[in-house]
Amino acid sequence: MKQIVECVPNFSEGRDPEKIAAIAGAARAVAGVKVIDLTSDADHNRSVLTMVGDSEAIGRGALAVMEAAIARIDLTTHSGQHPRIGAVDVIPFIPIRNATAADCVAIARSVGEEAARRFGVPIYLYEDAATLEERRNLSNIRKGEFEGLGEKMQAPAWKPDFGPDRPHPTAGATVSVARMPLIAYNINLGTADFSVADTIARSIRHLGVGFRYCKAMGVELKDRGIVQVSINMTNFRKTPLHRVFECVKSEAARYGVNVVGSEIVGLTPAEALYQAAEFYLRIENFSPSLVLETKLMEVD
Amino acid sequence: MKQIVECVPNFSEGRDPEKIAAIAGAARAVAGVKVIDLTSDADHNRSVLTMVGDSEAIGRGALAVMEAAIARIDLTTHSGQHPRIGAVDVIPFIPIRNATAADCVAIARSVGEEAARRFGVPIYLYEDAATLEERRNLSNIRKGEFEGLGEKMQAPAWKPDFGPDRPHPTAGATVSVARMPLIAYNINLGTADFSVADTIARSIRHLGVGFRYCKAMGVELKDRGIVQVSINMTNFRKTPLHRVFECVKSEAARYGVNVVGSEIVGLTPAEALYQAAEFYLRIENFSPSLVLETKLMEVD
Repeated sequence: MKQIVECVPNFSEGRDPEKIAAIAGAARAVAGVKVIDLTSDADHNRSVLTMVGDSEAIGRGALAVMEAAIARIDLTTHSGQHPRIGAVDVIPFIPIRNATAADCVAIARSVGEEAARRFGVPIYLYEDAATLEERRNLSNIRKGEFEGLGEKMQAPAWKPDFGPDRPHPTAGATVSVARMPLIAYNINLGTADFSVADTIARSIRHLGVGFRYCKAMGVELKDRGIVQVSINMTNFRKTPLHRVFECVKSEAARYGVNVVGSEIVGLTPAEALYQAAEFYLRIENFSPSLVLETKLMEVD
Repeated sequence: MKQIVECVPNFSEGRDPEKIAAIAGAARAVAGVKVIDLTSDADHNRSVLTMVGDSEAIGRGALAVMEAAIARIDLTTHSGQHPRIGAVDVIPFIPIRNATAADCVAIARSVGEEAARRFGVPIYLYEDAATLEERRNLSNIRKGEFEGLGEKMQAPAWKPDFGPDRPHPTAGATVSVARMPLIAYNINLGTADFSVADTIARSIRHLGVGFRYCKAMGVELKDRGIVQVSINMTNFRKTPLHRVFECVKSEAARYGVNVVGSEIVGLTPAEALYQAAEFYLRIENFSPSLVLETKLMEVD
């Protein structure tokens, strides 16, 4: 079965349609790369491109996007609401099919090394690809933004993983990362009492006392007169949806509150749903190769 | 998203590798058709070919297989353990993606009409495509086999849906059918008492007092010292896996027996697993378009 890695470059241009099209076009021109989404935000002055391919193709696609963006974006004259340190601000690699987190760390490193060499842009690695603990957290890296980067990089702690010890004059620096697909998953509770959602969110999130790969907060859904535990699952393989769901259900029951439903925002990998089916149906022999569509993709 | 219909012709040759390869080759030669499986059984003297394509391509593929099989198979000299009335004995059409049962009934009818005209073979439609209630059941149609077919067809009740009122001299008749994908699904019970599996099987199956689209029987798994409810789900959209699973779990509990696991034999459509995830996680907004792989297939 074909390997699929996703790459989601965030670049600092969200207003000029020609520049955005040229940067996306650079990705589309790479053999073996498919662009599946492109979203631009004028207020943020930032675009998010989603492309897929095998690890070889996606590496070439990432470099093509960086080359096109660095040539067209000048951060010395850039403004926008979203914090950024680079023309290509963040470039995450995500394993989708037949690829592991380790594969994506390797891609992030080799693309970072090559981009530093070719474009003279300093590269920081973060999360699973990070080489220093202080750099695991993106907001630490991005603190001070492009404007503060020259001064920040004079400290030895901010020597980049690859490339020069000072920012690229117009393109700043790029943060390269390997991460799991994010699942935005909300669980709705049959009560208008915000404190129930808030208390449960605190119990299940990593920032607190909960699951390692779970971010959560309480939200009021005023139009429905109920509350919600709004969740980001940052690694569904290690902290699966069904475990978080069952935990929320049991915590809510302690207040006499029912789970009235849940919702997936955006996309989920099929595997996260297979995990739930496998768990609840107690399937002993589950493997993705039991799924007809997997077989169909093999012959595609 | 690309439409996918599956067609699984069962043809009466399971011994001669050259003939089998020629018949499968006829399917492979059709543009837009992919052969994903071919299984031959020498004792049955029968082969089962699985191919996929959109409704246009799969119709051409079905006719190509029929033409190649009718030219090569002579039922007057055919013997084998499996009952059969035709060179192409049964030709089912199954909706996989972006296709409905009604689409497959239409394909079965148009392929049947065209095959009768081109090859002079009488065609019976059964199950969802049947025009008469007596013909909904395949074993009724096949009773008497090829050897008894000439006499059987003299009765007005056995006038075929398409084609001549007598069998093709060497190729007999063909039964064309539209059906849902079958899911073979077994639920294992933590007891060695066969009567528990047997009683539950009788309670859940349509041939009995159970679910409309469920066949089931009790089985002993001697090596594991447990029993199993062995199930065929004949329409998972109408009788979903999770409903049968929960029913077996609750019936078993009445005997103090636990469900220790379940297993999928062969393949399952992804949709059957999505249904289970949607049910147990109480997902309010579920649609296959929320699944990343669906999006990937759209750009394939």
